[in-house]
Amino acid sequence: MDHFRRSVQHLARLPGVGEKTAQRFAYWLLQQPPEVARGLAEAVLSLRESVHECPRCCDLTEQDLCRRCADPRRDERLLCVVERPQDVSAIDAAGEFKGRFHVLHGAISPLSGVSPQQLRIESLFLRLEGVEEVILACDPDVEGDATALYLAKKLKALGLRASRLAHGISVGTEIEFADRVSLARALANRREL
Amino acid sequence: MDHFRRSVQHLARLPGVGEKTAQRFAYWLLQQPPEVARGLAEAVLSLRESVHECPRCCDLTEQDLCRRCADPRRDERLLCVVERPQDVSAIDAAGEFKGRFHVLHGAISPLSGVSPQQLRIESLFLRLEGVEEVILACDPDVEGDATALYLAKKLKALGLRASRLAHGISVGTEIEFADRVSLARALANRREL
Repeated sequence: MDHFRRSVQHLARLPGVGEKTAQRFAYWLLQQPPEVARGLAEAVLSLRESVHECPRCCDLTEQDLCRRCADPRRDERLLCVVERPQDVSAIDAAGEFKGRFHVLHGAISPLSGVSPQQLRIESLFLRLEGVEEVILACDPDVEGDATALYLAKKLKALGLRASRLAHGISVGTEIEFADRVSLARALANRREL
Repeated sequence: MDHFRRSVQHLARLPGVGEKTAQRFAYWLLQQPPEVARGLAEAVLSLRESVHECPRCCDLTEQDLCRRCADPRRDERLLCVVERPQDVSAIDAAGEFKGRFHVLHGAISPLSGVSPQQLRIESLFLRLEGVEEVILACDPDVEGDATALYLAKKLKALGLRASRLAHGISVGTEIEFADRVSLARALANRREL
């Protein structure tokens, strides 16, 4: 069954999907009416063809300009820089931030061979007019920290304020069960009462 | 992002895949070169177009007759009935069985509305010439038991021997950690030494 094996190989490329799960997907597709496989194939194709990066903020969009860049009510003075398009939705869903976004599509990582030139950093520095503060909402890991530091240095040189998201224990987490790194950050960033 | 949401919906239909995982698949596809999405779409389409049921054993195949049915060395007197195409591969891989297979594509389940007429039972009874024993390798659950009993009754009426796979504790399982159902079956099916 060459087509079957090829399908399994393609499905097994999906993130977090192994050979066994890919086989399960393939058998399931064969059990469904033909429209299901056709629908999936067309959706996957149209996804790649219709979705592109917003020319301004580099978030993914199907319009010329993404809906957040097209929204005139957002505060132009605040810019939130994130690593991934998913982060934009997450921060927006929190409802606290009403400024603009910029998606880097990754973080600086010499180990994985990701240099600043491969990220959307050039386009970030082309849109700083009117911006007063840049919130560097990179991930709290080595790559995210390196990226935030790199950007903060350059932004400060231009006279802009740069900030990072506060790290600490999650709301609702009992101290007993908080992970060590978050607890260390929570202690280091403690606030006077 | 209509296309994006539609893709996520289609991907979330895959078994065991929720909204979050489907989103992860979609974002991943967008990060890959366009060939990845195209390859996946084509593989999914060709899967449904090239794979069909073997007219004899109802296993899935891309040939006119599946390779096991086309193999003249297999014992025609022994027929192993399974619920799913996956079961054929699993039993074949065990290396113990050299007879023929028949795939029911399901099990009788009044609760899920699966009647004997929806399974490949008619084609099973059309190929019993020369068969001496039918091994009913249905799953050890309510539906599998019901299906095996239903088939055993009909097979015995035709003068054929019907058997089921032995159930018991897995080889290598310590009794302490065996599940209760397997342990109960192992006791009920104990063999004199």
